[in-house]
Amino acid sequence: MATPVKVHGPPMSTAVSRVLACLLEKNVDFQLISVNMAKGEHKKPEFLKIQPFGQVPAFEDGGVSLFESRAICRYICEKYADKGNKGLYGTNPLAKASIEQWLEAEGQSFSPPSSVLVFQLAFAPRMKIKQDQVVIKQNEEKLSRVLDIYDKRLGETRFLAGDEFTLADLSHLPNTQYLVGVSGRGELFTSRKNVGRWWNEISSRDSWKKVVDMQKKSA
Amino acid sequence: MATPVKVHGPPMSTAVSRVLACLLEKNVDFQLISVNMAKGEHKKPEFLKIQPFGQVPAFEDGGVSLFESRAICRYICEKYADKGNKGLYGTNPLAKASIEQWLEAEGQSFSPPSSVLVFQLAFAPRMKIKQDQVVIKQNEEKLSRVLDIYDKRLGETRFLAGDEFTLADLSHLPNTQYLVGVSGRGELFTSRKNVGRWWNEISSRDSWKKVVDMQKKSA
Repeated sequence: MATPVKVHGPPMSTAVSRVLACLLEKNVDFQLISVNMAKGEHKKPEFLKIQPFGQVPAFEDGGVSLFESRAICRYICEKYADKGNKGLYGTNPLAKASIEQWLEAEGQSFSPPSSVLVFQLAFAPRMKIKQDQVVIKQNEEKLSRVLDIYDKRLGETRFLAGDEFTLADLSHLPNTQYLVGVSGRGELFTSRKNVGRWWNEISSRDSWKKVVDMQKKSA
Repeated sequence: MATPVKVHGPPMSTAVSRVLACLLEKNVDFQLISVNMAKGEHKKPEFLKIQPFGQVPAFEDGGVSLFESRAICRYICEKYADKGNKGLYGTNPLAKASIEQWLEAEGQSFSPPSSVLVFQLAFAPRMKIKQDQVVIKQNEEKLSRVLDIYDKRLGETRFLAGDEFTLADLSHLPNTQYLVGVSGRGELFTSRKNVGRWWNEISSRDSWKKVVDMQKKSA
């Protein structure tokens, strides 16, 4: 039997959970390898060989090692094109262009304010770091403006890139889960009719529910 | 003759110039359509139809309209695979995975601090906005840490994704040009042996020299 794909990092990490959701959608077997970040294992020389930025996840598939969660997801979809959810990264160039557009919108417009909020609201209290209320307010405003645009889009199409659930939607799951589930910022999403409907639908997928279970078990 | 590709936005914009560099590398004819941002043309309803975030560039190719510069670059490389620089987005899945990895490193690690610095050092003075020295210092430190990792990588390979110039390198040109050429932060790059060698090589490409000329003419 072939060595399964290896994912190094804790499922609590938003970037790790993005990759896990993709692997589960694609029905690709994987082995999760723990990285004790509290002990600084992600800054050790042997880890830096596969992830030079000292971040999680690192990813290995046979002789291939990769970092950056969205790049890893694209690789998984290309490499395992015939497995699991075949439409996840599009089945024609136009569908793919739309997915790339909204995947970049996630990385460039949604992720910056939502990542700051996840850190401030979910991780800072656990790490006994003082929350910065000014930063929280600024980033709630930024995220609200992004979600207004999403709400308009999601009034026209069922999912961000069109009528199918794709990598573009999947990539929003990790941060949104923390904001809705842990940080009491669900209203940012549910107060917007189409965003709320979209969130209910994408977070109900079996793949994502499995990731949330993995997060709970490792908490 | 087919209608050429349309790029809406000023060449001074880093995101617009990323797309222009890609079109020139791929030898794809295009029409540049001015958007007067000082007059708020990027926030007008007709522009928001093709770029809902009210940012530049917007891109049109026949019936296809797209936004997000890195997604547009990927589309250009896929659609015009047989034109111009054929290796720009890789010619096999492994090369592509490496390009995606470093393109994401640009978008997620290099771009955030370098975009803040470009705004603070190059655009704020022109817009008569007061520079924030604390923000400048913090982001110089962040960018330095990223460039240390790049320097190590570029000691092993000629370009970021391997031995060929690719979209991953190209995507770094716009912000670096401002930091080296306008903002007097060239030392961040040239003081690092491999990064300096890489910058000299990628910024000397005909495609990029043409973009810099377009920027000068529109200044």
